[in-house]
Amino acid sequence: MTERPEAPELTNPRAERVKKVARLSGRSVRQATGRFLVEGHGPVTELLAAVVDPDAAVGVVVDTLYVGLDADPGYARAATAAGVEVRTASAEVLAAMADAVTPQHVLAVAHRVDVDLAQVLAGRPRTLVVLARVRDPGNAGTVIRAADASGADAVVLTTESVDVHGPKVVRSTAGSLFHVPVVTGVPLADVVAACRQGGLATLATAADGRQDLDDLQDEAADGRGLLVGPHAWLLGNEAWGLPAEDAALADTTVSVPIHGHAESLNLAMAATVCLYASARARR
Amino acid sequence: MTERPEAPELTNPRAERVKKVARLSGRSVRQATGRFLVEGHGPVTELLAAVVDPDAAVGVVVDTLYVGLDADPGYARAATAAGVEVRTASAEVLAAMADAVTPQHVLAVAHRVDVDLAQVLAGRPRTLVVLARVRDPGNAGTVIRAADASGADAVVLTTESVDVHGPKVVRSTAGSLFHVPVVTGVPLADVVAACRQGGLATLATAADGRQDLDDLQDEAADGRGLLVGPHAWLLGNEAWGLPAEDAALADTTVSVPIHGHAESLNLAMAATVCLYASARARR
Repeated sequence: MTERPEAPELTNPRAERVKKVARLSGRSVRQATGRFLVEGHGPVTELLAAVVDPDAAVGVVVDTLYVGLDADPGYARAATAAGVEVRTASAEVLAAMADAVTPQHVLAVAHRVDVDLAQVLAGRPRTLVVLARVRDPGNAGTVIRAADASGADAVVLTTESVDVHGPKVVRSTAGSLFHVPVVTGVPLADVVAACRQGGLATLATAADGRQDLDDLQDEAADGRGLLVGPHAWLLGNEAWGLPAEDAALADTTVSVPIHGHAESLNLAMAATVCLYASARARR
Repeated sequence: MTERPEAPELTNPRAERVKKVARLSGRSVRQATGRFLVEGHGPVTELLAAVVDPDAAVGVVVDTLYVGLDADPGYARAATAAGVEVRTASAEVLAAMADAVTPQHVLAVAHRVDVDLAQVLAGRPRTLVVLARVRDPGNAGTVIRAADASGADAVVLTTESVDVHGPKVVRSTAGSLFHVPVVTGVPLADVVAACRQGGLATLATAADGRQDLDDLQDEAADGRGLLVGPHAWLLGNEAWGLPAEDAALADTTVSVPIHGHAESLNLAMAATVCLYASARARR
């Protein structure tokens, strides 16, 4: 191995390179550059693990890892092993780059992986989850994590949804953003039409659905019903759900049973219950 | 109905009554006084609904509802219908009382409902959920909500857990704190011993459990196995899970299957999947 001269430490928070990274806190800059920020120990560790994981479902590319002077040398080792450029930076530079208010010892600039719905459907998916106008980053990220854990094939976020490359979503996915294909920016009606054409049943969750998830699971245990075939779950906004006209696009509406006095489950919990029902039906 | 003279509007943020309410932001004051704060539209609405709901599982008592001058008159009407004292207060007074940084138009002081584990077990519960040293308010609140929605009988938080009467937990439960009995402050070993004596199997969730939730559900579908009998789910801290010595207290350890590349589910999601598996087994 030939030694290459080490790149100088970044110490000027007003340097053009630092400003360019900082601008990635803005959604429009992320969209224009196709890059996004991955901040902090958990997300960076998961990102670097995904880069070297041959089974990772999405091809993750990282431009640069920025590490603080006193950061764990394990970050730089992992980045080098993954073929990622490493730059050391002062605390001021890291603070200037980061979106988070809390100090970060490490952050990375990664490429957005933009996946096409047609591409996803060409892979003959068995389970999709579609988030329609979801705005809450924590809920969106948790649903991406649930999709990954339950073995769903992809997540679709319709137009007017939260940006999945924002730092809070990235954090909530706990690495699953780097594992599961995520399609964004498609109107719900187009998603439903494409699913139908692709042979997927569409099931919208609703408080007063025409079908009960328990009944669908009973049918699936007998090897029949909508869950045993390819299907897409449609879930609405965390506050107001799926408007009636949107739910009407789906083949059917499904209620997650509420046994106690709770009004409802939150979006991420409802998605998790539905996706695990799908996972059992797929076995 | 006789008119009674209206209590004067509260305008002095330094009044003793205001200070007393403000002190409820502290855990020790909540414990000493047996009172807690319920802040904002959602939580207050759910609180007042629970007071007048004859089916509500826990007896909720409210001292006073404080409403801003320009708050929706519906709050005062609902409170009066529930037999709750209503006081109007200036924005400064509400801000001084509230724990939240965002301005509140309405807040209530309610009685903590302290439920004994022996009392819960005397009711011959079929499903309990035990949170061992859970610290994150959002996760704890969401598990209480999942317990309610899935029809579990009670939630137990061991010693060293987050205070369920803190404002963030109250908000995350979405009213379920007012529906489900919640036991607090019992060491995990005592909870497990009491469950065993009460005839409940104890199932600790673990990444590498001896049993797989799918297998337990298959057994339950055949009318056998641990899920068809009374049982308690033990879940550990959101960051480090259940230490081996704690998991060893349980009758068995159970893994929620992870089908994709996700490392794990978060605490609230894992609890939701387990509790809905229990709900199906109980049918």
